[in-house]
Amino acid sequence: MREVHQEISSWLGPLGAVVRVDAAGNLRALRPATAPESPRVLIGSHLDTVPGAGAFDGVLGVVLAVAVLEAVVSKKFPLAIEIVGFSEEEGVRFGKPFIGSRALVGKLDRDLLAIRDGEGISVQNVIESFGLDPAEIPMAVVAGDACAFLEFHIEQGPVLERLGYPLAAVEVVAGQTRMDFAFLGKSNHAGTTPMDLRCDTVAGAAEWISGTEALAKGTPGLVATVGSVQTLPGATNVIAGETRLSLDVRHASDAVRSRAVKDLTSLAEGISQKRGFTLRYTTRVDQNAVAMDPFLVGQVAEAIEKTGGVPHRMVSGAGHDAMILAEKVPAAMVFLRTPGGISHNPAESVAIDDVAQAIECGIYLLEQLAASPSFLARTHRA
Amino acid sequence: MREVHQEISSWLGPLGAVVRVDAAGNLRALRPATAPESPRVLIGSHLDTVPGAGAFDGVLGVVLAVAVLEAVVSKKFPLAIEIVGFSEEEGVRFGKPFIGSRALVGKLDRDLLAIRDGEGISVQNVIESFGLDPAEIPMAVVAGDACAFLEFHIEQGPVLERLGYPLAAVEVVAGQTRMDFAFLGKSNHAGTTPMDLRCDTVAGAAEWISGTEALAKGTPGLVATVGSVQTLPGATNVIAGETRLSLDVRHASDAVRSRAVKDLTSLAEGISQKRGFTLRYTTRVDQNAVAMDPFLVGQVAEAIEKTGGVPHRMVSGAGHDAMILAEKVPAAMVFLRTPGGISHNPAESVAIDDVAQAIECGIYLLEQLAASPSFLARTHRA
Repeated sequence: MREVHQEISSWLGPLGAVVRVDAAGNLRALRPATAPESPRVLIGSHLDTVPGAGAFDGVLGVVLAVAVLEAVVSKKFPLAIEIVGFSEEEGVRFGKPFIGSRALVGKLDRDLLAIRDGEGISVQNVIESFGLDPAEIPMAVVAGDACAFLEFHIEQGPVLERLGYPLAAVEVVAGQTRMDFAFLGKSNHAGTTPMDLRCDTVAGAAEWISGTEALAKGTPGLVATVGSVQTLPGATNVIAGETRLSLDVRHASDAVRSRAVKDLTSLAEGISQKRGFTLRYTTRVDQNAVAMDPFLVGQVAEAIEKTGGVPHRMVSGAGHDAMILAEKVPAAMVFLRTPGGISHNPAESVAIDDVAQAIECGIYLLEQLAASPSFLARTHRA
Repeated sequence: MREVHQEISSWLGPLGAVVRVDAAGNLRALRPATAPESPRVLIGSHLDTVPGAGAFDGVLGVVLAVAVLEAVVSKKFPLAIEIVGFSEEEGVRFGKPFIGSRALVGKLDRDLLAIRDGEGISVQNVIESFGLDPAEIPMAVVAGDACAFLEFHIEQGPVLERLGYPLAAVEVVAGQTRMDFAFLGKSNHAGTTPMDLRCDTVAGAAEWISGTEALAKGTPGLVATVGSVQTLPGATNVIAGETRLSLDVRHASDAVRSRAVKDLTSLAEGISQKRGFTLRYTTRVDQNAVAMDPFLVGQVAEAIEKTGGVPHRMVSGAGHDAMILAEKVPAAMVFLRTPGGISHNPAESVAIDDVAQAIECGIYLLEQLAASPSFLARTHRA
């Protein structure tokens, strides 16, 4: 991470940006405006990634921000521009995502600092051993002059490729519910137990999985996934007395998602009653959708159109730093088409032409914002 | 096992039986008939069991045989009676069942002797270290005077309890097929992949499991079980790119079973084609049904009726030593009702009254056989 910071800093210095690493390990590079009272636009994404990753998830959005800054630096917009390279977005080490961006909204608190990794080392320990001072975390919070956060990120899904669009404006980050279900029936001999005397949890689970797929297919925009199935005892010649399943449900509308979760829970209850199972379930994640700022989404769409693209608006099925920043700053995202929808994989890629178009989009976007009185009026809120 | 042999031998000596342990570790106790040319009836079951077992699976059939012998010893039937307590029926240690009974039909061969346990110790090693001589295994084969093998065993299923019958005659041991299936689709992000762009193997597997249950429910006497399901990578937020399933299919008719296996394979192929999966499958077990001797089954039914019971005939869904012996000797089995169908579990039980009725049934059975000219005519076949 130090090498990444050094490399990116070496590009930013010549652009007149003042570079620092905040107490949460985020790279922060401020290119001031000519007028000292100018509003500030933050542009960035995350610098960390996952094991076995590709080369674009996160870091592309930072590099792209630098390219946009480079292109506009001579234009003397009445805007300060801050490039941000977030730390710890993926949550690999501590099982908790968005640690870096949480610092910018004042949510990197005592509880989060106390979380420990697999070896018992806390977030606080790690910050200190990186040479940073956790006491300075409050200074990482975005200042009152911040009027927008813009994030470029690969889609990590197949939608734009299927549509043939290089770019899209993210309108909302879908809310998500993650649950664990367990059907408890009766484990019996696969040879000696006739079909009508069984209490087979695998057969009941199959019925529920099919119902889950059918509900999602029948509800526009809903995705519902059973990604993990475990059978106990899990032997060829034994009827499984217990089947455990995971459920992941996402939608842009919290009402639609809540309704789907309720329907799927009812379905599991109905199957359990019919088949004589005991049903257990717990909710592990229940996170509401986060809307991007409508004005900024419109500006992104307009900028995409200026590049010759279709101003497509879409839902992000995955969480992003922009979702965290949105709590304190009007935020927007630009998705770049992801070939094959492949991400978190060394085969992850992006087309050079799409990146060029995204840079162009970023330039138009800053131009529009700089020229927008309604936008400038939003600043100095804090 | 030595203690079990010693205990049972101590009951058999006073009944005039000559006790030995054959080279496969089977307890063999011959009570000769008064006339030297009399046919021999073997009665027995296995003495080994599984880890975490109950007290009745196997050994009840040996103890019950001793009780029957005790009851008839004064009757001077023109029959020699040999009590057999088989070794290694369950296949726990070597992953291969029926090692003891295979010796009685000449099937404990060089290949089987070479099989090794988890610690690399072979069947041959174990026989030698128990103090037996593998060279004497051919002497364990049933002699030409053997005219019947009778086995009493708990049902290990719920059928007799449901019917309210203490005893039943086993007509046939079901054939069985065991297979492994794998659906290979595409692993994708659960949040960013819309339902119509998925290649979700869990959803396809669910369709197949439901089809399997429906086929078995619609085919009288068929049991089909998916006991193990594994999802890869098996994470809540990832669409499973691979799902592996086990299949266990059993039926008294080999034709019905083969047809079902073919139908379920076709179903898996159809689902794979429709959903864009690659399908892999392998057959691990393909074992034909074994009929019990029709004459002996009739005699068992008659004996059950004499005890006041309903002469119910049924299929054994599990394999038993009688199935192995049937290759060389007319064989029959008597099932005893198993409360709750619970077996291979410390809660396994049997009702005292049912055991008393089984002993009574055994006495009637020997009486009938001793008085049956057609039965006696079968002897001295070898």
